[in-house]
This record gives sequence, C-alpha cells and structure tokens, in this order.
Amino acid sequence: MRRGHQHVRSPFVGSFDCLSFLTDYGLDDGFVAACHGVAARIAPGIRIIDITHLVPPGDVRRGAAVLAQTLPYMPRGVHVAVVDPGVGTTRRGIAVQAGDCILVGPDNGLLSWAIAGAGGATGAYQLTNGELWLHPLSQTFHGRDIFIPVAAHVAAGTDLASVGSPLDVGDLVTLPAPTSRVHNGEAEGEVMSVDRFGNVQLSIAAADADQLGIGFGSSLVVRCGRRQLTVPYLETFAAVPPGEIVAFTDSAGLISIAVNAGDAAQQLGLPPGAHVRLSAPPAS
Amino acid sequence: MRRGHQHVRSPFVGSFDCLSFLTDYGLDDGFVAACHGVAARIAPGIRIIDITHLVPPGDVRRGAAVLAQTLPYMPRGVHVAVVDPGVGTTRRGIAVQAGDCILVGPDNGLLSWAIAGAGGATGAYQLTNGELWLHPLSQTFHGRDIFIPVAAHVAAGTDLASVGSPLDVGDLVTLPAPTSRVHNGEAEGEVMSVDRFGNVQLSIAAADADQLGIGFGSSLVVRCGRRQLTVPYLETFAAVPPGEIVAFTDSAGLISIAVNAGDAAQQLGLPPGAHVRLSAPPAS
Amino acid sequence: MRRGHQHVRSPFVGSFDCLSFLTDYGLDDGFVAACHGVAARIAPGIRIIDITHLVPPGDVRRGAAVLAQTLPYMPRGVHVAVVDPGVGTTRRGIAVQAGDCILVGPDNGLLSWAIAGAGGATGAYQLTNGELWLHPLSQTFHGRDIFIPVAAHVAAGTDLASVGSPLDVGDLVTLPAPTSRVHNGEAEGEVMSVDRFGNVQLSIAAADADQLGIGFGSSLVVRCGRRQLTVPYLETFAAVPPGEIVAFTDSAGLISIAVNAGDAAQQLGLPPGAHVRLSAPPAS
Repeated sequence: MRRGHQHVRSPFVGSFDCLSFLTDYGLDDGFVAACHGVAARIAPGIRIIDITHLVPPGDVRRGAAVLAQTLPYMPRGVHVAVVDPGVGTTRRGIAVQAGDCILVGPDNGLLSWAIAGAGGATGAYQLTNGELWLHPLSQTFHGRDIFIPVAAHVAAGTDLASVGSPLDVGDLVTLPAPTSRVHNGEAEGEVMSVDRFGNVQLSIAAADADQLGIGFGSSLVVRCGRRQLTVPYLETFAAVPPGEIVAFTDSAGLISIAVNAGDAAQQLGLPPGAHVRLSAPPAS
Repeated sequence: MRRGHQHVRSPFVGSFDCLSFLTDYGLDDGFVAACHGVAARIAPGIRIIDITHLVPPGDVRRGAAVLAQTLPYMPRGVHVAVVDPGVGTTRRGIAVQAGDCILVGPDNGLLSWAIAGAGGATGAYQLTNGELWLHPLSQTFHGRDIFIPVAAHVAAGTDLASVGSPLDVGDLVTLPAPTSRVHNGEAEGEVMSVDRFGNVQLSIAAADADQLGIGFGSSLVVRCGRRQLTVPYLETFAAVPPGEIVAFTDSAGLISIAVNAGDAAQQLGLPPGAHVRLSAPPAS
Repeated sequence: MRRGHQHVRSPFVGSFDCLSFLTDYGLDDGFVAACHGVAARIAPGIRIIDITHLVPPGDVRRGAAVLAQTLPYMPRGVHVAVVDPGVGTTRRGIAVQAGDCILVGPDNGLLSWAIAGAGGATGAYQLTNGELWLHPLSQTFHGRDIFIPVAAHVAAGTDLASVGSPLDVGDLVTLPAPTSRVHNGEAEGEVMSVDRFGNVQLSIAAADADQLGIGFGSSLVVRCGRRQLTVPYLETFAAVPPGEIVAFTDSAGLISIAVNAGDAAQQLGLPPGAHVRLSAPPAS
C-alpha cells in the first residue's frame, strides 16, 4: 500500500485532539453513535472523523485498503478501526504506534497496511488493561467497550504503555500485500477496490506505468483473464467523452480504469481481487 | 426496554455540551444538515451526535428501540428524536426530563422506552412557547423548526420550564413494551430488531435465560410458530464456525440469534415483531 | 430557487467557525473523510456540517437544488460543494461571495441557485493560487486537494482575494432556473426533487397558488402530460388518511405532492424534471 502524499507532522507529545473511526457497523443502527458517545464522555473536546462505517460486513481486506488510503490525510491523532469477525474469541486487541499515529483495533491484519504506509510500527501493545474498558463488557461489541474507550483515554493523554502488555511488532498479524510487480514489460496487479462511481482501482502505481515507459497521452493494454482491451491513459476520466473507457492515475497514486459518467466495474466485470496485467501497446 | 449499563452521571445544572439526534429523515436530502445548522446557530459550540437517520420512514417502534438502546452511552445532554408521521396534526411536541437527560420530540411514544430506561420521567412540558421556534413555521418539518431549536436553546442554558406548559408525566403517550415474560419453563418474547449483520435481537434478556437455568455453553431451544431449532448458547457469535447458527448475549444485554458470517434474519425468516419462545432442551 | 427563511446575519469579518460540505462522493469510501481530515489540519477548531454526500453521481442539478434549499439554515461560514463531472478538465474552480456566505466549488452551475438565493454574487475568484492547495495535486480529487484546502484557509482567516484571480460575477456558469410561472389561471412548473419519503417537490411556490386563489382547505388540479388528478391542498400530508394523495406547502415553501405514509413519486410516476401544471378546480 502506497501513500500518495507525505506530510510533515509534529512529533508525538501529550494528548491528541482527533480520533478517526472506521468500521463495518453500518449506519442503520445506533452502534456508531454509541461509540461516539463513549468517546465524548472520556475525551469531551475531541473531534471524531468517521472514515466510513460501510465496509461490507467482515471484509477485513476492504477495511484495510480504505484505512491505508485515508490515513495520510487525517490530522495527527488516534485511529480506531473495527472490522472484527473474530470479536470475543482469542484474537488480540492492539494499540500500535506508527509514525505519529496511534492505531487501535483487532489484531487481524486490518491495521497492517495503514501501519506500513505510516512507516511501520515502532511500538505495539496488547489491550489487556481492563481499567480502561467499559464494564460490563460485551463479548460482541468491543468497538464500544474496548477499542473506543482505550483510544479516547490515549487521546486524552493516558500513556500508551498503560493500555496493556508490550508486543513484539514482528508478531502483529499482517495481511498479504496486494499483488503488484513489474516484469517482462508488464505490470501485474489486482483490483484493489471499486468506488461509488464504479471506478476500478488497481494495485498498480503510476510509477509502475512510468517504468514501462507508459505516460499520459499514450495507450495502455489491460489484460484480465482472456479479455484484453486497449484504452487511453490520461490525467483524468473526464478527458474522454461520456461512455468511453479510460485509464488514469487516481487520487491515491494508483492506476484506475473508469468509464466517464458510467460504471466501469459493472461494465467490465472487474470485481475486487481480479488479477490484471498492464502493458504498452505493441509498437506499430 | 432494559439498559445494558448504568453510569454515574453528574446532576443537572446549567447548560449541556452535547445534543444527540435520531430521525427517519435519511441522508440523501439536506434535512439533517438543516437541523445541524439551526442547532449550531443557536448553540455554536455544541457537539451533535447523530444516533441514526435511517429509521424506516414512520417506524416509531424501531426509532424507539434504537434510541433506548443507544441513550445509555450518550454524554449528558439533550436528545432529539423525530419519527413523526403525525407532524402538523394535533399530536403534541414535548420535552421530558428523565434522569439527567432531556428528551425532545413528538408525543407519539417514540421517546417512551428511552424515558423508561433512564429511570422514568421526572418532568414534562408541551412545546407551546413559539418564541423558541424558527419562523415562518413549516407544518411538515418540525424537526428543523421546533424540536431542534427548542433543544438547542435548552442545551445553551434556557430553563426547561420555559419551553411551554407543564404536562402530567402520566399523560405522555407510551408504546406498549415488547412482550417479555418467563413462565412454565419458557421465556416468551419477540424479535426486537435486526441489525446490519442480520443478527436477530430478541426482547428476552440474558437474565431471563439465567432464570431458566440456561447458561453459556449449554443449548437452547428456539420456537417460532411451528418451527423449532436447537442452537448453542455461547458468549459470542464468533465462537461457532462460519455459517452456523448460535444464540448469544448481545451488546444490549438481550439474547440474539446469529449466523456467524451470515444473515440469520434472512436465513431463519425472523422479522421484527415475530413471536419467539426459548427454553432449555429436554433432559436426555 | 426561493429561500424559505431570511435570517439576520452579522457582516463578514475575519474567520469563520463553520464549513459546510456537499458532494456526490458517497459514504462507502474514505473520500469524505479525507476532506474532513484536510480541513481539520488547516483549520483545527472548525465545525464541519455535511449537507449530503449522496447526490447521485454527477447530478449537478440535484446538488444545486439541495444546496440552495439547505444553505439558508447554515451558520455563517464557508460552503464547499463538489459535484464535478468535469474534474481535471478546463472547467474553473471558483470561490464566490454572496451575502455573508463564501461558496467554493467547480464553476459548472452547482453553486448558482444557492448564490441567487443568498442575494447574488458580490465577488468571485478563480482558484489559481496553488500555494493554498495540497501537493502533489490529484487530477481527479479536487475536493480534497483544492476546494477543501482553499475553503479551510479562508475559514481560518486567509483573505478571500488571495485564492486567485478576480472573475466578473456575470461570467459565472449558471444553471437554468427551474420552470415556474403563473399564466392563464395556471401555475406551470416541474418536479424539483423527490425526497426520501417519496414526496414530490414542485418548482411552484405556495405564493403562486395564492395568486391563483387556491388556499389551504380547497382542492387543486394537478396535470402532468395527459394525466389529471384533483387532490386536497392542506397544511400537512398528515391531514389525510394513510394512503391518500395530498398537496401541501413543504419546508422550502414549495408545493409538494405526497401520499400519506406512502411514496407519491413511485405511485404517481413523477420523476425530477417532469412538467406539471396546477390550477383551481372548475367552479361547479
């Protein structure tokens, strides 16, 4: 996972005034609100930024991708992410320091791409100090009862080391990185995600296209299974007429396939995880 | 409606710094934002926590359930709820004190379970003081023009008694409580709600299962109409393999039926309101 | 576009403490959150009010209508709207002063109805000062990289004139106003929008009905193509029994058609843009 931007941030000191929050809780129930309420009780002045709560239920990989792509734009703060199909089992709860971020959530890989994007973990703790939790403790809503209260306490100035026992950062669960490599004149990758507009984000960076000598204004061959299409590679999807296919560098620095004013994912049948290869068109 | 947690709160004094907000307005229009704007003009520094705005249109019972289950986690404040199919008719607007909460909304039962959960009403007023309202007054958007401005004024320190004429708390409209009783070795109840994950929340509390001698690790017989199934009763849905049915105590202290990594409501055909009975399995 | 309410606001001075935000970004991705994060970094104490992010992708007209109808209820502040199918092309980015509002977004007409509702533009600038932008600049996410950072800087006290080069306010792109006229004893208009409840908002104001001598309690003839129906014109949709059709004055001061506890748009087949005529019933 690549960070599109690097911002200079001030080093870690004292308390934070921002807490970001990503889950698969949805917006129909009061789950997200209960978490906001718990945070506001513990850290009354804190700003809470909701990253999204519409991660498909239990889709850790999708949660990890959205978190990693959004985190670089967050203020310095504590970042809570909960997509947690193993809640209440033996999977650990963790708090991890990476760069000037603190990340809090289940140790199931959800945080791993964001941690890598922030420069790697420099410290990690298992959440074992129940004094920071809400009681009675629910076994199915650790977001409300463990992750948010711990994060809010840390944001309010509680020492990170007091959240529990130290962990070896090498022991944290990590998700396998999305396929992305350049060889034999081809960039190979997969569909990272599909956004609201149906734009198909690949795990292939603009820099990989550069390496293949493909620049804006040229064409690009996309192969997926036995299908192959040649599309213009331009700076923005809006540079082609409505209804036409285009490849462009998206806001995360990755190559995306779009249909201007249409839905590329649907039209091309490219779901998350689909294997894709890019190359320059054959010299004519 | 039971409160899962009891928190010690400071007694009522002066102004509040939090306003919570639940409606059936949806998120596609600017309705919720107009209310936020009105509140922020009257009480500039106030934090607004959106409980949910996706209550199905006009579903007072669903709104009442979400409000009652979420309120215990809110900071001390003023709580506005608007699911109001009778807007503009003779139904009253009310402000109610219960515990250290002020609740504001239509007098159609929407607030009643939350009031009961907060310990019962200790004071109530009909919203008759038009000086606190927005003018010209719309007859179809009392959320924006009456409930939110009144709540924001109260949050900003306006005396509750000035919102209108006192009401006898016994005259407030209440929704019938969900069926929930233990008799003849059975707990009888109904489906309270179905969450985003398809988990089926019953109106039967964990304490009722205790009373029947059913504890975690044992099995539980669920009867709904002529259907009957025996499921493990465990601490979390994640304790069974994906695809299997399980009963557990949910984050509101109620017994819920889930399919791990699946949708129990859909799979079992258990919609809100369905009548359900629980018992221990016959001794073998 | 009419403003339902006029509020006295203090004149423009220094910085703002509110930023409103409307887009078609949806809530599934981290796009809105990235914008919140960028704003909070630049203007740490600012309140952000999300108007909506569920404008149908690329639907500039729908975005313009929601913005214009919601803006009158916003606190004094900077208002960012991004429905921007031409992002990255030659369409301009603009900041416009109108009344005591600053509006920021693409110059594609999206802001035009809100500007008119706020009394018309008194100053306009093309966003050309890249020092206020985020770099590297994405060509497909100007919300995050241009509009929000510029707005946050202005909210934090940066002089509006420093955002770029002055524009003639007469050169701003405007959307054609919705049809709305009274002649020959008829009010002629179109469907402005359909809300979550299926209520059909017309571009015909309550004042136009007045002009035709149609007041609450009388009937009203609605013509759409070859269809014609006669409905009661009342103060609120709740004044008719569930399932019945009614016309009423909505919260924006416009005439709307509803089915109480039902979905009028679906039942009557009246989509946005449909041409509609209203008149008094023939004298009997």
